[in-house]
Amino acid sequence: MTKVVFDVTEAESIDRYKLISGLVVPRPIGWIGTRRDNGTNNLAPFSFFNVVSTNPPVVLFSGGRHADRPKDSVALAEATGEFTVNIVSEDVAAAMAVTAGTFGAEDDEFAIAGLTAAPATRIDAPLVVESPANLECRVRQIVDLGERSHVVFGDVVAIHVEEGVLDGTRVDHDALRAVGRMAGSSYVNTRARFELPSR
Amino acid sequence: MTKVVFDVTEAESIDRYKLISGLVVPRPIGWIGTRRDNGTNNLAPFSFFNVVSTNPPVVLFSGGRHADRPKDSVALAEATGEFTVNIVSEDVAAAMAVTAGTFGAEDDEFAIAGLTAAPATRIDAPLVVESPANLECRVRQIVDLGERSHVVFGDVVAIHVEEGVLDGTRVDHDALRAVGRMAGSSYVNTRARFELPSR
Repeated sequence: MTKVVFDVTEAESIDRYKLISGLVVPRPIGWIGTRRDNGTNNLAPFSFFNVVSTNPPVVLFSGGRHADRPKDSVALAEATGEFTVNIVSEDVAAAMAVTAGTFGAEDDEFAIAGLTAAPATRIDAPLVVESPANLECRVRQIVDLGERSHVVFGDVVAIHVEEGVLDGTRVDHDALRAVGRMAGSSYVNTRARFELPSR
Repeated sequence: MTKVVFDVTEAESIDRYKLISGLVVPRPIGWIGTRRDNGTNNLAPFSFFNVVSTNPPVVLFSGGRHADRPKDSVALAEATGEFTVNIVSEDVAAAMAVTAGTFGAEDDEFAIAGLTAAPATRIDAPLVVESPANLECRVRQIVDLGERSHVVFGDVVAIHVEEGVLDGTRVDHDALRAVGRMAGSSYVNTRARFELPSR
């Protein structure tokens, strides 16, 4: 088992991206819903995303804030202080991939991807009705890592879950059928589960 | 599709944990290696973990810092300013689960789980030789979310990858065979991949 060692400070940016995002897999997908000030909805997937605390309940996603891109989940979450996280199941994976494209400020990704937006209960940001679960979040803080890397922390204030996905307060992963991100246009389903004892 | 709505502020802590960590799946596993000041190695898995930036290259993991637990990856990363991330493949998944147990400050999880520790090149923290890839990280900042939730950001300074896992600078996921975390003792392999066009 011979390993190649990369000095990260010397690697090309594109190679760093391919290597690190290719090694840290499978990543959960935060399909982030925000509202623009013209009232249209924005929806885009992020796999630099995860839950980082459950007491308090906090999730985060990370992305760029681009002056040249009129719509931008990070900028909208910062401006409104609110965002939704919509869980990506196999049924909505193709629609999720559509919303990864670049669109204009007047475009509504819900319409483009054939999705239904519903109002949230505690915040003013759109929920994806077709997702099996949704989190309503209020921006807690934003950590800037670089020009194109801003980590948005959100307090989870409400959770919506399809009845069929719940087994008491436990999540039934056969019913959820969540999808994870690998690299490029490659994704993975969560059917091939197995149990490992921790002791 | 009827959804149940949970007001998170009113939910019991354990239910919040089960719900949120059960919905945000599959999570990548950061198998965090640190050094104790008595010279022994510490190794423990975290699934509140992800890459959040590749320019600069930054990963983070989140966990508790417990006065009643003599060893603790968050406290050790903070004290030493350094940690490794070791990628969990199917081959080392059982050993990873062993290191999720609670051990004493004199215990070396590498020995307990039958793993080989190797020195890192840029930092003083142990690498898991049996992992297909390892990241060397320097603590960048720590964001405290609550008594038991501390998010440790690390700058990636070096990357080790098994030759057979690399296809140029691309990662071959058939060779990596990474494992993700679902919930409780449930994990998922990354063999069931599929492609989705983004436009």
